[in-house]
Amino acid sequence: MSADFGLIGLAVMGQNLILNAADHGFTVCAYNRTTSKVDAFLANEAKGKSIVGAHSLQELVSKLKRPRRVMLLVKAGGAVDTTIDSLVPFLEKGDIIIDGGNSHFPDSNRRYEALKEKGILFVGSGVSGGEEGARNGPSLMPGGAEEAWPYIKDIFQSISAKADGEPCCDWVGPAGAGHFVKMVHNGIEYGDMQLICEAYDIMKRVGGFTNKEIADVFATWNKGVLDSYLIEITRDILKFDDVDGKPLVEKILDSAGQKGTGKWTAMNALDLGMPVTLIGEAVFARCLSSLKSERTRASKVLPGPTVPKDAVKNKQEFIDDLEQALYASKIISYTQGFMLIREAGKNYGWKLNNPSIALMWRGGCIIRSVFLGEITKAYRQNPELENLLFNKFFGDAVTKAQSGWRKTVALGATYGIPTPAFSTALAFYDGYRSERLPANLLQAQRDYFGAHTFKILPEAASESLPEGKNIHINWTGHGGNVSASTYDA
Amino acid sequence: MSADFGLIGLAVMGQNLILNAADHGFTVCAYNRTTSKVDAFLANEAKGKSIVGAHSLQELVSKLKRPRRVMLLVKAGGAVDTTIDSLVPFLEKGDIIIDGGNSHFPDSNRRYEALKEKGILFVGSGVSGGEEGARNGPSLMPGGAEEAWPYIKDIFQSISAKADGEPCCDWVGPAGAGHFVKMVHNGIEYGDMQLICEAYDIMKRVGGFTNKEIADVFATWNKGVLDSYLIEITRDILKFDDVDGKPLVEKILDSAGQKGTGKWTAMNALDLGMPVTLIGEAVFARCLSSLKSERTRASKVLPGPTVPKDAVKNKQEFIDDLEQALYASKIISYTQGFMLIREAGKNYGWKLNNPSIALMWRGGCIIRSVFLGEITKAYRQNPELENLLFNKFFGDAVTKAQSGWRKTVALGATYGIPTPAFSTALAFYDGYRSERLPANLLQAQRDYFGAHTFKILPEAASESLPEGKNIHINWTGHGGNVSASTYDA
Repeated sequence: MSADFGLIGLAVMGQNLILNAADHGFTVCAYNRTTSKVDAFLANEAKGKSIVGAHSLQELVSKLKRPRRVMLLVKAGGAVDTTIDSLVPFLEKGDIIIDGGNSHFPDSNRRYEALKEKGILFVGSGVSGGEEGARNGPSLMPGGAEEAWPYIKDIFQSISAKADGEPCCDWVGPAGAGHFVKMVHNGIEYGDMQLICEAYDIMKRVGGFTNKEIADVFATWNKGVLDSYLIEITRDILKFDDVDGKPLVEKILDSAGQKGTGKWTAMNALDLGMPVTLIGEAVFARCLSSLKSERTRASKVLPGPTVPKDAVKNKQEFIDDLEQALYASKIISYTQGFMLIREAGKNYGWKLNNPSIALMWRGGCIIRSVFLGEITKAYRQNPELENLLFNKFFGDAVTKAQSGWRKTVALGATYGIPTPAFSTALAFYDGYRSERLPANLLQAQRDYFGAHTFKILPEAASESLPEGKNIHINWTGHGGNVSASTYDA
Repeated sequence: MSADFGLIGLAVMGQNLILNAADHGFTVCAYNRTTSKVDAFLANEAKGKSIVGAHSLQELVSKLKRPRRVMLLVKAGGAVDTTIDSLVPFLEKGDIIIDGGNSHFPDSNRRYEALKEKGILFVGSGVSGGEEGARNGPSLMPGGAEEAWPYIKDIFQSISAKADGEPCCDWVGPAGAGHFVKMVHNGIEYGDMQLICEAYDIMKRVGGFTNKEIADVFATWNKGVLDSYLIEITRDILKFDDVDGKPLVEKILDSAGQKGTGKWTAMNALDLGMPVTLIGEAVFARCLSSLKSERTRASKVLPGPTVPKDAVKNKQEFIDDLEQALYASKIISYTQGFMLIREAGKNYGWKLNNPSIALMWRGGCIIRSVFLGEITKAYRQNPELENLLFNKFFGDAVTKAQSGWRKTVALGATYGIPTPAFSTALAFYDGYRSERLPANLLQAQRDYFGAHTFKILPEAASESLPEGKNIHINWTGHGGNVSASTYDA
């Protein structure tokens, strides 16, 4: 009855989180279904630390202080349900189960409700930072039963990363809100990675840069507005040579997996009707990458422009433009992410705290950056900020970045280098700042072929075209006058 | 016991389909839950035709020949289940229920299975063409219990549209395959409409064209490769003036709805991992359009480039480039749609017939076009065609269109006119024809921060980097050697 915290699942994240908690003075009890892993862990990494082991769930629970705090780091999906079902019989009312895996937030909603009925406090917590983060300070995004927060706050904020002196962990919101915010984090991570890949690709294929030159560009960018973990590791990756002295990255198969949280974010955006286009394109870019053999066949038969040797006339200008394209696109991606969070809060009835979310992502996690410090500032200045682009800092940044951004997108289009994320970000920006979009024509088309009706612009309203009403026009003179209430094609 | 066919639901589509069937010599029994609609229909539109009415489901069934063929045209969702549940007690084994609404295909899968257990043959049929199509010949996409096909083939192929002498109706496949193909049709329709809107917007905002001039451009395009129903109605809409002599379309609120089949297509594409980017962007463009008041506020504070008066130096060249951009983007959109169909067939175990699908869309439906005749030809030439772009006609078309396409995308980016669909189509094309994409860097990043492993390019394999294996590198020299099998961040 001495351990502060129980942890189930000794894969890479679980082991590192336990070591981290032990470093902060907590006694942790470790359990794994394949119990040989427990023994191996105790005999090696955990040796000499405040870590004990258990060979059954019953033993694990018996070794924990009350209320029991048990964290699961098992594979998202059925394994979480199975583990919870096996664990619950040993628990008492008021005990706390924390799911720290990458669970889909609707599952966390469901588990929160089911455990609430049994008096168990469920917390679904996003955990980001990979193995390094788990070991030295991850970003933690807990949500669920708020009554659990006082009992886990100390542990969570101790083991979490710190940024500008504050822990990158705060209470997110009810039910599955923690995993929802983690999902959006991962979606944004997909976007950030795609943006970096596009910058690398354009330097390589238009600029003709070597990997070392590209690494140097990222090294420079990492000292400016783009200062971030992902830029930093990109610099290191590009400098990493294989045993034969050639850059390892150029030997890696260009086929990326995508089944996971990025996909969920894009699907959620579609479901909530929020134009989170950059994450959508980033996910689709991974899908396209995975069609490697089909692409290879296509490359033999589908021509494109030849990039001339002097495509880049002024290297520094080219790099500066590219930096601005990456920066502006990143601003758009985070803008879209926070638009999704805003809509989710409204839709699911969650009160979500934007400055805290930005601060949680500021350090510890994969998307950590100086940039997130600015977002934290923006939302602290105005917690009711409607849109990140309405903040002066970001509005000015995009304004300043525009010229280079536009030139980069045009360059990619002209020379046949795909920049789906840069392009969609720019299209979003230009659409977002358009008071009039061509959707008036689209509404006319829908009314023409399907009697779907349209509304009139307030300033154009008249007696025959009243404001706010659903109007159907007999465009052809020979269709019916029945408007479509039940059919939607 | 005299009617050939029963139809439930007398909204715009239902009424018109009944009139269509009656014109083709079938006796139809009409039923509607609000029975006053039945009486009104019989007394007016249906008067003097081979149409009878029913005031209850029992009466409806009693008036039908065996096996009963009952078609539902009620609101997709719960109303379909309720109607089926009420109807089934009056039916016998071997009777046929056809759902002609815009049901989501997983619902049709479920209904197919549930009714199969009761011996009822379920058919989920896509119906497209709006009110005009329903009246004069829609595109019909039936799938489900194949035993039903011989009993409905005659009616369906009689009332359907004809294209090049063939009916735009054929058996699609098992379970929910009919509604799946209808869903993809609608997704493609979203894409086509968005492409037309972008062309209109760029002519208006960069070219400074009047609505009549734009109408004339569409009229010309409608005589060439873009010849299609949507181009035709766009021409008519742009010429349609309000009572004050001003173009009506310019008075319509630029805010489009999106909840429906377009969204489902994009979500399904994400789920199956197919890069159906153009439909995705088209759905998101509708989402963005619907944020009208937010956009209006943004338009006041977010600057963009000024379009110079002489942005278009050569009008004809500008229009020709734009036509090529629209044509090439459309080819990409259909390519992506058929990639999704291919993947769905594989995933759901459906044998789907590409030439038939293209032919069903060739006439009657909203996306009908000369273009779909070419797709039919391509798949008839080679039913195993891996990708539409590998067909000579379409490969050549894209090749020829490239220069204008690239110029158009660059023009939009430069002058601040959003062209999300043109841009994403081009990015897809350039990505698809890239043997190497920058996903190698992405895989390196994932392995660096999350020990996710990568594979090696076959041509770069070595003893330490074997082909086909999942490889994890200790990039930093100080991380662990555990690769991530259970954690995905």
